[in-house]
Amino acid sequence: MNFPTRLVEEAVNEISRLPGIGKKTAMRLALHLLKADEDQTVDLASALVNLRTKTLYCQQCHHISETEVCQICSGLRRDPALICVVEDSRDVIAIEETAQYQGLYHVLGGIISPMAGIGPEELQIDSLIERAARPDVKEIIMAISPTMEGDTTAFYLSKRLKDCDVKISSIARGVPLGGELEYADSLTLGRSILSRTEYL
Amino acid sequence: MNFPTRLVEEAVNEISRLPGIGKKTAMRLALHLLKADEDQTVDLASALVNLRTKTLYCQQCHHISETEVCQICSGLRRDPALICVVEDSRDVIAIEETAQYQGLYHVLGGIISPMAGIGPEELQIDSLIERAARPDVKEIIMAISPTMEGDTTAFYLSKRLKDCDVKISSIARGVPLGGELEYADSLTLGRSILSRTEYL
Repeated sequence: MNFPTRLVEEAVNEISRLPGIGKKTAMRLALHLLKADEDQTVDLASALVNLRTKTLYCQQCHHISETEVCQICSGLRRDPALICVVEDSRDVIAIEETAQYQGLYHVLGGIISPMAGIGPEELQIDSLIERAARPDVKEIIMAISPTMEGDTTAFYLSKRLKDCDVKISSIARGVPLGGELEYADSLTLGRSILSRTEYL
Repeated sequence: MNFPTRLVEEAVNEISRLPGIGKKTAMRLALHLLKADEDQTVDLASALVNLRTKTLYCQQCHHISETEVCQICSGLRRDPALICVVEDSRDVIAIEETAQYQGLYHVLGGIISPMAGIGPEELQIDSLIERAARPDVKEIIMAISPTMEGDTTAFYLSKRLKDCDVKISSIARGVPLGGELEYADSLTLGRSILSRTEYL
């Protein structure tokens, strides 16, 4: 790719490090910023730096937070008996959007992945065990992606949690709502038959 | 959309002002930056601000430049008899990628668009007329998108240029190379018959 100037090249290189953005899109964004008001670029840059440098993480659940303990953990209407374990803050946001869950969360900060060099000690697992040992906690819900690494992480957590007096559950897996059976992959379909539930 | 913090919300709002990036993609990018090294965000932000505040424009052709006169205008192998008129710097980059053109450029900085409130006086048209009047300039090539506004701009330019002693040409329009006739739109196909060229 030909860059008209070094400044454009540096901007394109930095923009294209973002996930899902290639050099062509990066060039389009860079040229857009050049044509737009200078304020837009300055505001964007300062919002990004503020986000990265000033964001706090909840001391209890490790979710993105504005305060030492996040809004969810300190919420009066939240049920402290339930802890939903997720990989990262994105999953908390997705579950909160459903408005179906009133318990607390625990953000692991990743999943066990020997290929990426992430072992249990890199994740927020010790603090989860500590929380699970508290007398008011009744159930730990695993909401971890059903991949190889996700299943490994869930299995590891279940071993570590077995001495705690808590029920361990997992989010339901099956055919998506609104999905057509013939288009469901055979693994999901097979599992949905094995873990069938009573018709109500 | 639920935002975990005000910082995330501000970053998502700023990112989603970029063309082609919606709130969901913006959230994914913001959460990516939060997980990545702080350096990545700082480098990105400073590259964007540097690009916007330090970029110069060529005094002759108005293309993005590092110096007062751009590399193309000051190139020794460039033919000063040819000036290719384009809408913006993106078009210069696209034509340079083809490596088929050895003349100079003139970047208008937009096209005449009464709907967007852009008249001829907002564009770099006076400086084009000045350049066209120089004795060494022989041909002005219009490389403007074949849209309503583009055609209006080209027509306006041709009127303004008629007193200059230059040939005015336009890039060829026709069926794209490698394209199948049956999939070409009828306007393009019809025009490609009317403006047929001698078979060589």
